[in-house]
Amino acid sequence: MTTLYPNFKFDIVKPCTKTRARLGRLTTPHGTINTPNFIFCGTHAGLRSMTGEEAKAAGADIVLANTYHLLVRPGPDVVAKLGGLHKMMVWDGPIMTDSGGFQIFIMGYEGNSDEIKMRGKKAPKKSLFKINEEGAWFYSYHNGEKIHLTPERSMDVQKALGADLIYQLDECTSSAHGKNYHADSMRMSLRWGDRCIKRFTETNDGKQALYGIVQGGNYEDLRLESAARVNEQDFFGMAVGGYFGKSKDSLVDIVALTMEAIRRDRPVHMLGIGHVEDIFAGVKQGIDTFDCVEPTRLAGHGTMLLKGAPRMRLNLRNSKFRGDDTPLDATSVFHISRQYTRGTLHHLVQAQEPLAEHVLSMHNVAVMMQLFREIREALANDTLEQCEKEWLG
Amino acid sequence: MTTLYPNFKFDIVKPCTKTRARLGRLTTPHGTINTPNFIFCGTHAGLRSMTGEEAKAAGADIVLANTYHLLVRPGPDVVAKLGGLHKMMVWDGPIMTDSGGFQIFIMGYEGNSDEIKMRGKKAPKKSLFKINEEGAWFYSYHNGEKIHLTPERSMDVQKALGADLIYQLDECTSSAHGKNYHADSMRMSLRWGDRCIKRFTETNDGKQALYGIVQGGNYEDLRLESAARVNEQDFFGMAVGGYFGKSKDSLVDIVALTMEAIRRDRPVHMLGIGHVEDIFAGVKQGIDTFDCVEPTRLAGHGTMLLKGAPRMRLNLRNSKFRGDDTPLDATSVFHISRQYTRGTLHHLVQAQEPLAEHVLSMHNVAVMMQLFREIREALANDTLEQCEKEWLG
Repeated sequence: MTTLYPNFKFDIVKPCTKTRARLGRLTTPHGTINTPNFIFCGTHAGLRSMTGEEAKAAGADIVLANTYHLLVRPGPDVVAKLGGLHKMMVWDGPIMTDSGGFQIFIMGYEGNSDEIKMRGKKAPKKSLFKINEEGAWFYSYHNGEKIHLTPERSMDVQKALGADLIYQLDECTSSAHGKNYHADSMRMSLRWGDRCIKRFTETNDGKQALYGIVQGGNYEDLRLESAARVNEQDFFGMAVGGYFGKSKDSLVDIVALTMEAIRRDRPVHMLGIGHVEDIFAGVKQGIDTFDCVEPTRLAGHGTMLLKGAPRMRLNLRNSKFRGDDTPLDATSVFHISRQYTRGTLHHLVQAQEPLAEHVLSMHNVAVMMQLFREIREALANDTLEQCEKEWLG
Repeated sequence: MTTLYPNFKFDIVKPCTKTRARLGRLTTPHGTINTPNFIFCGTHAGLRSMTGEEAKAAGADIVLANTYHLLVRPGPDVVAKLGGLHKMMVWDGPIMTDSGGFQIFIMGYEGNSDEIKMRGKKAPKKSLFKINEEGAWFYSYHNGEKIHLTPERSMDVQKALGADLIYQLDECTSSAHGKNYHADSMRMSLRWGDRCIKRFTETNDGKQALYGIVQGGNYEDLRLESAARVNEQDFFGMAVGGYFGKSKDSLVDIVALTMEAIRRDRPVHMLGIGHVEDIFAGVKQGIDTFDCVEPTRLAGHGTMLLKGAPRMRLNLRNSKFRGDDTPLDATSVFHISRQYTRGTLHHLVQAQEPLAEHVLSMHNVAVMMQLFREIREALANDTLEQCEKEWLG
């Protein structure tokens, strides 16, 4: 591993005695972050309404951009011409890109989020793409162009984007798929992992580190088989692969049985998790980094995050905030959260002023970073249970 | 005047020898600004996607909020409860509020901007309101409530909002109105001015200064009659009242004949002017401050301002900016304008990322402030013609 990733390091600073949780330090060419930590989503190379500088001022340590969306538009050649993601996002800290696998999965469900979550219980329609051993084909939502995403191309594209932490291509699955499909898919993702490592090794310039993904749906034997192989593959980090089941319980179970089998010396990322209860569950299972669009997406819906509030949320659209001169968070270390009142944000949300999303995005970043700072302090002091109680309210 | 406005001052630093232009200094309880200067519009007490701090970082000296919109929502009582406009906008510099007259005029044209500009040449429909000697009645677009705006109420509302510079209530007119209407309307606005001064004087706490408005459409005799009376009324500042004609020429003529008659010792504001050629024309006529939604509105349409560009604009939607790694403005004093490239903004506009409007708003503020800084330097050095040539391109 040292030869493939000379400029990256993951140190476990303190393992927890009661759970799999650990305090860690993840070093990249663009800086070191303390873990557990949260990665903010800059889907199209933009953090919704925040500049990189503003996200940093609100406390963000690391951000993410989506390979699939940037492949569709503006294209990896254009991103490279513009100097790569760090330059485009005016962000000098670490950046992660995903592999595009998750969005291809969404394409297979025609982007219908109810279908993704299997609420409709319909079989997936794959009208817009096909997946086979070679890779995935889909049509660009931007200009209709047919795009081919193979494991090798995912590596090439992510190299052009220039993030620090990158991902192997994998196939996501859901509870609509049976066990045979899961077994075949998981083994194909393993072979895709081998191909990604091969391409990565051939083109490695020391600036990126590759994460592997453990798949296998909610089948214990498949998850264990996947984890055993990914453990041996020459990845820098590991991720618990997505699975869209019917309930939260299945998610927690999958993470638990996957984390039991994942080697402990690599950083582990959990894709797409942002709810406070899932974060505490993930931390206890040894997850080191999380990402989710929720903090910024909720800001766009007029919702602010707050320690101890129900589901950590206050919906500022509610008329009870009319004229409320309480600061968003009087105790925040972030000045914007102390300066703006809930009543002002209620008004700006009502008036559909873009400032509402902007202020709430920065505030929500600050709250997420407060959450993770307190989680790390709690791990240092063995007081995670107490910390969880305070945050869940 | 000194007794009514003890905490306000307008100094003419240097009159221009060739034109009516002058360098000035406008002092308010929230700071002193150099004139000529530009006032950025925070319609609903929000500068589109900028916090007050961000607008200040981009260079803004003074901002404006709209009495009419804030009267409709959230209401002056709520603004007062939230600590007034300075607190709501997290802005410690000077603030101006208009009187609501302009928006009432728009209401009369059912908010149709083509009708406002008389392109349709239809007679105005006043279905939503009525205006008479007492004041104006209209229905809230927010909740249908019937709202009564009299000169006295405009003073009370603007006092609750708490801006530094406030306006008398007036009636705007257009080229669809004949001379008789204009004469009657202008004289009614003068009587409204008297009523505003009376109410202002009764409730004056030294924190606000009142501007009068010269009306009279494009009729020279009416403008001169109006200016003569407003000169005598106990206002701190003066404004050239709106008139919606068919061409730019009529606007320039109206400003010229109004400015000939306006007393020279008071600051003069020109409402709703933001095009670079109009600004130079206005400065030469002795206008001290301008306001317009254009810099932020254009940002929402993907347009950046730039010295010397045609109409001072670059439309970043244009596909020629794809992959263009030229900074927005490499020579800007504002770091955001140097850090972000035109190609990145082209992409963010295409991807409909809110960040595009946010970055372009701050950039456009920076360019407007560069324009006015250079205008002031040119006035100091008697090089306004040269400055105008450089900016018009």
